[in-house]
Amino acid sequence: MAELRKTPRTTVRREKERGSYDRELARRILDEGLVAHVGLDDGAGPVVIPMAYARRGDELLLHGSVASRTMNTGGSGVQVCATVTLLDGIVVSRSWFNHSMNYRSVVIVGEARLIEDDDEKQAAMAAIVDHLIPGSRDYARAPTPNESAATHVLSLPIDEASVKTRSGPPKDARADLDRAAWTGVLPLALTVGEPVSASDEPLPDFARDYRRGVEAD
Amino acid sequence: MAELRKTPRTTVRREKERGSYDRELARRILDEGLVAHVGLDDGAGPVVIPMAYARRGDELLLHGSVASRTMNTGGSGVQVCATVTLLDGIVVSRSWFNHSMNYRSVVIVGEARLIEDDDEKQAAMAAIVDHLIPGSRDYARAPTPNESAATHVLSLPIDEASVKTRSGPPKDARADLDRAAWTGVLPLALTVGEPVSASDEPLPDFARDYRRGVEAD
Repeated sequence: MAELRKTPRTTVRREKERGSYDRELARRILDEGLVAHVGLDDGAGPVVIPMAYARRGDELLLHGSVASRTMNTGGSGVQVCATVTLLDGIVVSRSWFNHSMNYRSVVIVGEARLIEDDDEKQAAMAAIVDHLIPGSRDYARAPTPNESAATHVLSLPIDEASVKTRSGPPKDARADLDRAAWTGVLPLALTVGEPVSASDEPLPDFARDYRRGVEAD
Repeated sequence: MAELRKTPRTTVRREKERGSYDRELARRILDEGLVAHVGLDDGAGPVVIPMAYARRGDELLLHGSVASRTMNTGGSGVQVCATVTLLDGIVVSRSWFNHSMNYRSVVIVGEARLIEDDDEKQAAMAAIVDHLIPGSRDYARAPTPNESAATHVLSLPIDEASVKTRSGPPKDARADLDRAAWTGVLPLALTVGEPVSASDEPLPDFARDYRRGVEAD
């Protein structure tokens, strides 16, 4: 499988050993995340907005409403950057300088295309529902034509992109290793609590079994 | 207390009822988050990078290394946008259109200033350690002059900014309410697991008691 496309914009410069162009790794991170932070510049300076998304093949589908500035600018041939970050841990070292975080992130840049064809838009919305609430696609009502018209979906190719990750224990400077101090990692995970019902109907399987991320394995 | 500054860039246009300019609410969200997604445009299109940060008064302190493009561009009078998003839940409705997420987010725009004064930089790094690992400031070694020189800290005023939140149960369309279906919220939280030790020393209180967010209340 081809690697992600390394360009001046996607070349990892800082802490290069953490960078990767592994497309399969990017896919796994995108499939685990729930929100992309999407940046664009509509002429008044950059704006970064959290958006729901889904990955379909090598396409990132970004979801918003017609009223959103992000959507209106982002779908008209403007360059966008979509970044998905998973936080895995806080890394405690013997020095402030070597404190760190464990994380996995994907940065995708490129030109986003507004999906205008009705069938393509419906399929994209289905993909986003599948990503947000796996197993629920047939449970809730699909959009009416009016609802579909009020929803914008952007397609961004997962191509010019890079991955950055840190994992594992702290790395202290050699000169600090004789300092007697606990060091280690405080693991972080986005976890799902007990469902809060808003109706009296029985809890469906997709809600009872909802899991996110590596815990699902 | 003065509200956040509402400008064309920070006016919430989409789902206005979710928008707020409440400074105290912005502070609470920033204090709970761990990572800001920072966007800037260095001339080749927007780039969004996850960065550690701290809030100190009405100042957002953003942390990176000298080699980072974000830092080099972002500290030279360029407009940046820093967004912090907390995910609180997945909202399951009777229709795809009314599925949603519960979240709290802060979007801050403005010109970031590179902190150059050594004492100010050391104080800013201490604030970031306090935010990342509360109670640990005196536990690990403070930066040497070389380490401090290799670290860039940006200061962004928390002024031109807005808050956006969604909370509570799903809101179905009236016409859907007779569909018999479970609806509700699947709560999400960033949770801390059991510490993974990398040294044989006893676990310090700040690591054993580490909590994040509303759970700490």
